[in-house]
Amino acid sequence: MLGRVLCTVLFVGALPPPAAASQGHISVVLLGATGDLAKKYLWQGLFQLYMDQVSSGHSFTFHGAALAAQEPGQRLMFDVLKRLSCPPDEPPNRCAVLKDQFLKLSQYHQLKTAENYTALSREIERLLLQEGLQEAGRIFYFSVPPFAYTEIAQHISSSCRPPAGAWLRVVLEKPFGHDLQSAQQLAAQLAGFFKEEEMYRVDHYLGKQAVAHILPFRDQNRQFLDPIWNRHHVERVEVVLKETVDAKGRTSFYERYGVIRDVLQNHLTEALLFLTMELPANLSSAQQVLQHKLQALQSLWELQRSSAVLGQYQAYDSQVQEELQEAPGYVSTTPTFAGVLIQSHSPRWEGVPFLLTSGKALDERVGYARVLFKNRAYCPQSGTLREAGHSHCKPKQIIFYFGHGALGTPAVLVSRNLFQPAMPKDSWKAAEARSDLHVFGQPLSDFYVYSPAKERDAYSVLISNIYHGRKDFFITTENLLASWAFWTPLLDSTSRQPPRLYPGGVENQQLLDFEMVGGGLAFTLAEPAEPLSPGGQMPSEFRAIRSTFRQSPLVSAWAEELIAQLASDMEEAARSSVARSGQFHLALSGGSSPVGLFQRLARHHFGFPWQHTHVWLVDERCVPLSHGQSNFQGLQRHLLQHVRVPYLNIHPMPVQLNGRLCVEEDGGARLYAQDIAALVPHASLDLVLLGVGPDGHTASLFPRSPRGLQGAAAVVLTESPAKPHQRMSLSLPLINRARQVFVLVLGKGKHDITTLLSRVGHEPSKWPISGVSPSSGQLVWYMDYEALLG
Amino acid sequence: MLGRVLCTVLFVGALPPPAAASQGHISVVLLGATGDLAKKYLWQGLFQLYMDQVSSGHSFTFHGAALAAQEPGQRLMFDVLKRLSCPPDEPPNRCAVLKDQFLKLSQYHQLKTAENYTALSREIERLLLQEGLQEAGRIFYFSVPPFAYTEIAQHISSSCRPPAGAWLRVVLEKPFGHDLQSAQQLAAQLAGFFKEEEMYRVDHYLGKQAVAHILPFRDQNRQFLDPIWNRHHVERVEVVLKETVDAKGRTSFYERYGVIRDVLQNHLTEALLFLTMELPANLSSAQQVLQHKLQALQSLWELQRSSAVLGQYQAYDSQVQEELQEAPGYVSTTPTFAGVLIQSHSPRWEGVPFLLTSGKALDERVGYARVLFKNRAYCPQSGTLREAGHSHCKPKQIIFYFGHGALGTPAVLVSRNLFQPAMPKDSWKAAEARSDLHVFGQPLSDFYVYSPAKERDAYSVLISNIYHGRKDFFITTENLLASWAFWTPLLDSTSRQPPRLYPGGVENQQLLDFEMVGGGLAFTLAEPAEPLSPGGQMPSEFRAIRSTFRQSPLVSAWAEELIAQLASDMEEAARSSVARSGQFHLALSGGSSPVGLFQRLARHHFGFPWQHTHVWLVDERCVPLSHGQSNFQGLQRHLLQHVRVPYLNIHPMPVQLNGRLCVEEDGGARLYAQDIAALVPHASLDLVLLGVGPDGHTASLFPRSPRGLQGAAAVVLTESPAKPHQRMSLSLPLINRARQVFVLVLGKGKHDITTLLSRVGHEPSKWPISGVSPSSGQLVWYMDYEALLG
Repeated sequence: MLGRVLCTVLFVGALPPPAAASQGHISVVLLGATGDLAKKYLWQGLFQLYMDQVSSGHSFTFHGAALAAQEPGQRLMFDVLKRLSCPPDEPPNRCAVLKDQFLKLSQYHQLKTAENYTALSREIERLLLQEGLQEAGRIFYFSVPPFAYTEIAQHISSSCRPPAGAWLRVVLEKPFGHDLQSAQQLAAQLAGFFKEEEMYRVDHYLGKQAVAHILPFRDQNRQFLDPIWNRHHVERVEVVLKETVDAKGRTSFYERYGVIRDVLQNHLTEALLFLTMELPANLSSAQQVLQHKLQALQSLWELQRSSAVLGQYQAYDSQVQEELQEAPGYVSTTPTFAGVLIQSHSPRWEGVPFLLTSGKALDERVGYARVLFKNRAYCPQSGTLREAGHSHCKPKQIIFYFGHGALGTPAVLVSRNLFQPAMPKDSWKAAEARSDLHVFGQPLSDFYVYSPAKERDAYSVLISNIYHGRKDFFITTENLLASWAFWTPLLDSTSRQPPRLYPGGVENQQLLDFEMVGGGLAFTLAEPAEPLSPGGQMPSEFRAIRSTFRQSPLVSAWAEELIAQLASDMEEAARSSVARSGQFHLALSGGSSPVGLFQRLARHHFGFPWQHTHVWLVDERCVPLSHGQSNFQGLQRHLLQHVRVPYLNIHPMPVQLNGRLCVEEDGGARLYAQDIAALVPHASLDLVLLGVGPDGHTASLFPRSPRGLQGAAAVVLTESPAKPHQRMSLSLPLINRARQVFVLVLGKGKHDITTLLSRVGHEPSKWPISGVSPSSGQLVWYMDYEALLG
Repeated sequence: MLGRVLCTVLFVGALPPPAAASQGHISVVLLGATGDLAKKYLWQGLFQLYMDQVSSGHSFTFHGAALAAQEPGQRLMFDVLKRLSCPPDEPPNRCAVLKDQFLKLSQYHQLKTAENYTALSREIERLLLQEGLQEAGRIFYFSVPPFAYTEIAQHISSSCRPPAGAWLRVVLEKPFGHDLQSAQQLAAQLAGFFKEEEMYRVDHYLGKQAVAHILPFRDQNRQFLDPIWNRHHVERVEVVLKETVDAKGRTSFYERYGVIRDVLQNHLTEALLFLTMELPANLSSAQQVLQHKLQALQSLWELQRSSAVLGQYQAYDSQVQEELQEAPGYVSTTPTFAGVLIQSHSPRWEGVPFLLTSGKALDERVGYARVLFKNRAYCPQSGTLREAGHSHCKPKQIIFYFGHGALGTPAVLVSRNLFQPAMPKDSWKAAEARSDLHVFGQPLSDFYVYSPAKERDAYSVLISNIYHGRKDFFITTENLLASWAFWTPLLDSTSRQPPRLYPGGVENQQLLDFEMVGGGLAFTLAEPAEPLSPGGQMPSEFRAIRSTFRQSPLVSAWAEELIAQLASDMEEAARSSVARSGQFHLALSGGSSPVGLFQRLARHHFGFPWQHTHVWLVDERCVPLSHGQSNFQGLQRHLLQHVRVPYLNIHPMPVQLNGRLCVEEDGGARLYAQDIAALVPHASLDLVLLGVGPDGHTASLFPRSPRGLQGAAAVVLTESPAKPHQRMSLSLPLINRARQVFVLVLGKGKHDITTLLSRVGHEPSKWPISGVSPSSGQLVWYMDYEALLG
């Protein structure tokens, strides 16, 4: 049937003659052709594509597909197509003709079985053959639930691939997993069927005009932005999506996802990355754009539970109970509001807070990405600020306004005391002055304001970019997984945390105001009293408790609090040591346990007297210091590169000498012992940080080690049962000369050895850690609840 | 005569009986007793001291002194004393009695010759003997021009010292020199006569109640301030003194000093230091306070010409012409307005701008020290900001208000959304709410406001502190010289710079608004056209010029521009090297010339790819690396501790091996050459930065050096004619393998060698620098005008 339609169209010459030589034929297959998204946006976007590209030299057919049988499916679909609207900027006559053609070029297919897919492919081939058309490519748009992805992907890959020389593009809609693991699974499955360049993962925010213009704006205004687009000038970056609606009617989806997965992990993160990524030299290179975006994502500090404040509108629980048939007592911890503090360790953005905020049931519907600049000016004359419109003492900001809110349209706003931006005249126009409006605390007249010359729906923009093969408007697998890797730890750590309840709408007042406190976020107002409290103290709110373990003080808490306490105790030790002797000799262990500690020290303890601290290694693997397995490298990456320890106060272990690793005759252990003897008074380190292995080893002193458990040597070469086998380690006698020894024990995996250690005596040859017993110093155990309680 | 007066007073028992056992007698000698300062403040301050301390157990006599003969001097002085006023908080009866006593205890002396001083001392001794009083101490208050200091000091020291067991305190009024050198001279002269603990240098700002309360406020509010008094929370610190008056009638003083010497070097710096110094554990320890203040001063970055904006009110020149009988065409460059950006490299304040501003002929008379905090909050509900008085999205600030201005009294203001401060109830009271007043852009009701329970004049406060021996209310010699060392380079570099002219008063409008630009300050508005322009382009405004020197490119400019250009060229070289090869091998010279360059790189080039840079040394002195003379130490102090070069990319020269320095057999030079060979592709460094000595040496390659000028060795040990003689140096052949060599030549002292080098050929054995000629790389000379033109 379609054959005849196409035939007719082509033969009667109803199509405007292609502007260029024939570029070949494109078949677009919309899977889920009668679903909500298709009805609302996708068909309209495809129609827009057809209108825009009808003269491009490409010919098109559009294949709607769904599970429904041919006849009812077709009827449903054509009901949708008939309602397609003509954009206001399109001459009505042309649009009517094109709509008619579009309908003729469209047909419905039931796609359920393998045979259906084979049939679709044969149909496309037959038709092309019949019309003597070259095949340019096929677009498969997955507007179906993600559980159906794999099966459809398999069918397409095995039965619907275009012949060599023509491309395949599959378009995927979120959700792309709900955490790192599930996203990896889904990605791995898809990778079994499609090549990376064939996949177009949609985040429709990338099609929103204000978001899509962030990079072009940065590019076209380089001369103004280059000097100020950095930590010296930017005070903060906010990316915000506020909604007035709540989740009613969608709780079956929402209850599993929540605001972070729904909005922050994707939309807001993407907008943030466009603002903060290094600008590629060539913006037309999708590859450069994607690479820089990925780098920006990878330069973000890991999120901690304290990075977020979470809220839930008060009616949510009862909506869930009703829609999901939960018991009346059911309490959900799914957040419907989140504020998240993100920080980058890139040299450009270090120290600049990025605040991502979104919520349902707020007072206003609005979205924006806002860069607020520091006030760099001083205005000596008192009246200046109030009187002068362009005073440099007024706030300076650049706002990409996604839409809704006071302005009602997408817009780009630039404070007049910053610069008059270059804007592409064909697509953005200066907005009319509306002196009555106030936005972001200032009259609108304080800004240069631009809005799109034509408002385009995000899906139209994206479908056009699929057609143009602009992969930078989509989410690559690498980008997706990096984003989930970034967000998943926060999702995990907050999953049991009760969100703050808020009434919804204007009544929220200041209840959701939050502020940056000690590297994280906290609500500004204390938790209000009943009836908003969800009741029940959660484990996260326990304070660190103190008792004893093996006759020494024990500090115990959940891991995050424990590390915070340990870091504070270390700063305290450092300060008192510097006050006493002018210096602080600190020996640190490698491995994974202290990484969180190092990060905490680097990010929260700016008052730590690093200038007077000597950093020693407790032990080292016999690999070059630049090797990824080197303890020193970990220390460097997670701590030293973020703080200011004088070069000569850093003491890596000399595991490599004369071009060889840990050779006895090279005397590395002896050299290190000499350094300690020369610099550390009485060879008594001020603080030694140790860990414990499941076998009871500590430092690189392993059970039944012939060396380092006793004797005169301060530093020894040892053998580890694990690779790399060769190690250098401080000896037990040296450790026991220290003023303080802190032992950090984290995680369920340490529960057995912890239990055992609580029972055994001093048996260092069996369990070296049991030999740690400072002769005149103090030993403190820091164990998290998992290590202590299992 | 005094004998009889004192005698009378003591014998008739008119003095209230001492509250405590007799503490001995104090003689106060006021030199310049009939001068302006004495009339206006000092006698009143001494009378206040008498009123306060009459029951302390000390007895007093007051000796006014001046050059005038006895009879007229005495008449003049008693005319002043009779006009002494009673403070409002003093019961009138008591005050009248005490004033009468005070007059009786006061006498006039002509102090002109050595004999006069001897006579004064004998008089005091005789009197004490006669009354059977123990001598507690003598205060000499110098209210005389500084040129008279030395002679008076000599007389006091030789003839008026109290006997053993009693103290001497000499009180000195500014100016204490007009730059570092003159201050050092004056300090050295005074040190010949007085011990440090005997000298009390007055900065009357330290007696202003709001300034004097800065440290107690910080101490009493530690719990609130500790977490926020740092670079993470403070956005900026402003110390401001605005005057409406101009310099008319005082130009003979003002023309030699200008606003920086008059106000910034002393008053505003002192207030800034109270705000920014580390708070001593014990505030009652003057020694701790002084030590911490000095450290704060020493942690400030050196000022550059670009650190300041300078202005001069328009009428100033004609005032100078009239008062100093200058010719009508006379143009003064003395600034009457200055804004200065100061930055600290302490871990607490790094990156926080400190803005000091003062000017005459402004729109308002007011002084304050203000700490503005960063906005750490996000308020999701739109209305919140306007409606809520305590919203955390409003500005947060703490202001020490010196007086005048809208408030009209000294005050301490704390934003209500910060905390309610602890204030000493006996000396500070909460001010009444005045909702009509706006200060610092907010209604006064947004602040907790406190003002002194009793307003005390600064001199009264200081005289009381002299009596109590509180040296922390005064300027120590160390403090003074450190302050001049800090300010003198700016004074020198701006001495020929024409200040921006401003009309004065409210008409200044935005003309004096300034902002922080690239590490310095600049007026926000472009220089207005005539008639305000002083005309004539100054040398500072020349751009860097390019030509050639010894057939290689030459960049020349004034030193500061030259260094800015060199730093930019280095960043450019680094970026292109990293883009090409992923790394950048940079060899740096020691010595003083590159210090400015290092600072510029550290402070202005945050985009420099330090993460991928390897830093090598061009040469090193054979001293331990931790030694102050070590080139590496200079590099560490001025550059490495401020940027993020990975530890393993830093390559100090191994001058110390096996506990000895530069011993041939230890093979340090060979080791360094091996490191270069192992890490630098083809041993071709990407950039070598060299200097030139007056003898034509470069690196540590000296004329007629037997080593390093040719041959295979990449690194050599050499001998310097200057100490320390032993050196390690890259060789000429290695230098000539580099891709780029930049030679930096600064200062008049290099003019002769520069002239010579422009004429000679390739003669490295005579002038090693003439042998620098990269075989396939580029050589660029960076010479300042002084080196090039003499």
